[in-house]
Amino acid sequence: MKVCIIGLGLMGGSMAIDLKKRNFATHIVGYDKSELHAKTAQNLGIVDELMELDEAVASSELVILAIPADATAEVLPKVLDLIDKQVVTDVCSIKGNLAEKIKYHQKRSNYVAAHPMAGTEYTGPWAAKSALFDGKAVILCDVENSSEEAVHTVRNMYDHLHMRPVYMNSYNHDVHAAYISHISHISSFALALTVLDKEKNEKNIFDLSSGGFDSTVRLAKSSSDMWTPIFVQNADNIITVLDTYISKLQGFKEAIEENNKTSINQLITKANKIKKVLS
Amino acid sequence: MKVCIIGLGLMGGSMAIDLKKRNFATHIVGYDKSELHAKTAQNLGIVDELMELDEAVASSELVILAIPADATAEVLPKVLDLIDKQVVTDVCSIKGNLAEKIKYHQKRSNYVAAHPMAGTEYTGPWAAKSALFDGKAVILCDVENSSEEAVHTVRNMYDHLHMRPVYMNSYNHDVHAAYISHISHISSFALALTVLDKEKNEKNIFDLSSGGFDSTVRLAKSSSDMWTPIFVQNADNIITVLDTYISKLQGFKEAIEENNKTSINQLITKANKIKKVLS
Repeated sequence: MKVCIIGLGLMGGSMAIDLKKRNFATHIVGYDKSELHAKTAQNLGIVDELMELDEAVASSELVILAIPADATAEVLPKVLDLIDKQVVTDVCSIKGNLAEKIKYHQKRSNYVAAHPMAGTEYTGPWAAKSALFDGKAVILCDVENSSEEAVHTVRNMYDHLHMRPVYMNSYNHDVHAAYISHISHISSFALALTVLDKEKNEKNIFDLSSGGFDSTVRLAKSSSDMWTPIFVQNADNIITVLDTYISKLQGFKEAIEENNKTSINQLITKANKIKKVLS
Repeated sequence: MKVCIIGLGLMGGSMAIDLKKRNFATHIVGYDKSELHAKTAQNLGIVDELMELDEAVASSELVILAIPADATAEVLPKVLDLIDKQVVTDVCSIKGNLAEKIKYHQKRSNYVAAHPMAGTEYTGPWAAKSALFDGKAVILCDVENSSEEAVHTVRNMYDHLHMRPVYMNSYNHDVHAAYISHISHISSFALALTVLDKEKNEKNIFDLSSGGFDSTVRLAKSSSDMWTPIFVQNADNIITVLDTYISKLQGFKEAIEENNKTSINQLITKANKIKKVLS
């Protein structure tokens, strides 16, 4: 299948690598508005060819948008205007706004809304790698609004990325993403800000980081280009979960202030239940 | 050297494995107040022999306490009462209280306060593994109060664990540990509590956890036995950093509520500076 990937960063680049390697894509055409990213992806052999956006779309059977949430909201309707029979999909971490935006587009059924739950804290084609998606879940949203053929194509593509499909509507997706993924990023960004604020000696941070800080703060390396639009578009859900998070921290603070071992112990033991849920 | 390890969990067990393998310890005697842990450590070949605490101390040249902070505060003075020429060290994450407690003990100079900055979220001798400490920092505290010989022995031991020594006084250690390691654990415990509270469907947590949540919440699997006494003993420093952390989260909340992209972008870009500091 001829595949067009718009956005040749971590996500798009990693998809390209495995879709080619695993014989799903026969030819990959790439587009990135950053010339540096585009040329790098070509030099690294991630894409076969670079084209302008409209040519890239015209020459392919499947179009993958792998760009930030604000850019997707802008580019997706344009791509739907350009297509004939092509299937279109995206990788956005936020789905409600997008669904509203293209709800009545005459090519709506050619589009499958997807959110592959994988990534790293790094960005750009340099960060792209094989097996990034292996064994993880991909959330497919509102599939009843997509044609069977389009859903089949996108599912088949994610089979080649070794991802497990999970079905949700866009609204539920955004609630659950806020409750689990988006709050984790805010927790981590705020932790980085706290430590940078409190700890003036960078060598101390480095020496003491292996006491767990390095893992908890990992996501704070994530890019503003990707996360600012997510926080803006999913504001209501994020505010709700942020309020809960702050109140849990205040619970810890009170228990520690009161020197209440029983209460601290209960909070930790309750938090430990996350073990059962995670792999 | 004949080594005695009190506490045969993740830390003590992992030390035993590499100290033997790398020919620092000729014979390792172990003690654990949990018979299950003790027998398991013996069955796994982590220790050569099990003994009662006083015998174990008497038969060794170096005594390592690898037990939680509250237990260390209780056992360390007793061990110092028991020793003759032995060198004694511990692995506690909190040092100030302990330093006060044994300040005037006649064997103070035989003791070297240490905090190896390594670990995992797992506990017990089952979790012990080789190379746990490799390449990480060990904080040695108040070494001016230890004899040269004792410091030499403990440094030599940590050389065999491939750790990099960093020197601090106990007071500074506790401040920096709160600012970096302890706050990370609270951030993670509170995140687990939030998600368990908000997200009633455990399958959603599992499916969406690879979007970063799994890394940020990893420390929430850590044990209450270890962390409750740390939070109690380091309460003042932890409250201070917790206040800063909550205010950073409130900063995010306000920026998101106001739909202020510039401000969100600035917060994330500032948080990204943590990249420069970490490896």
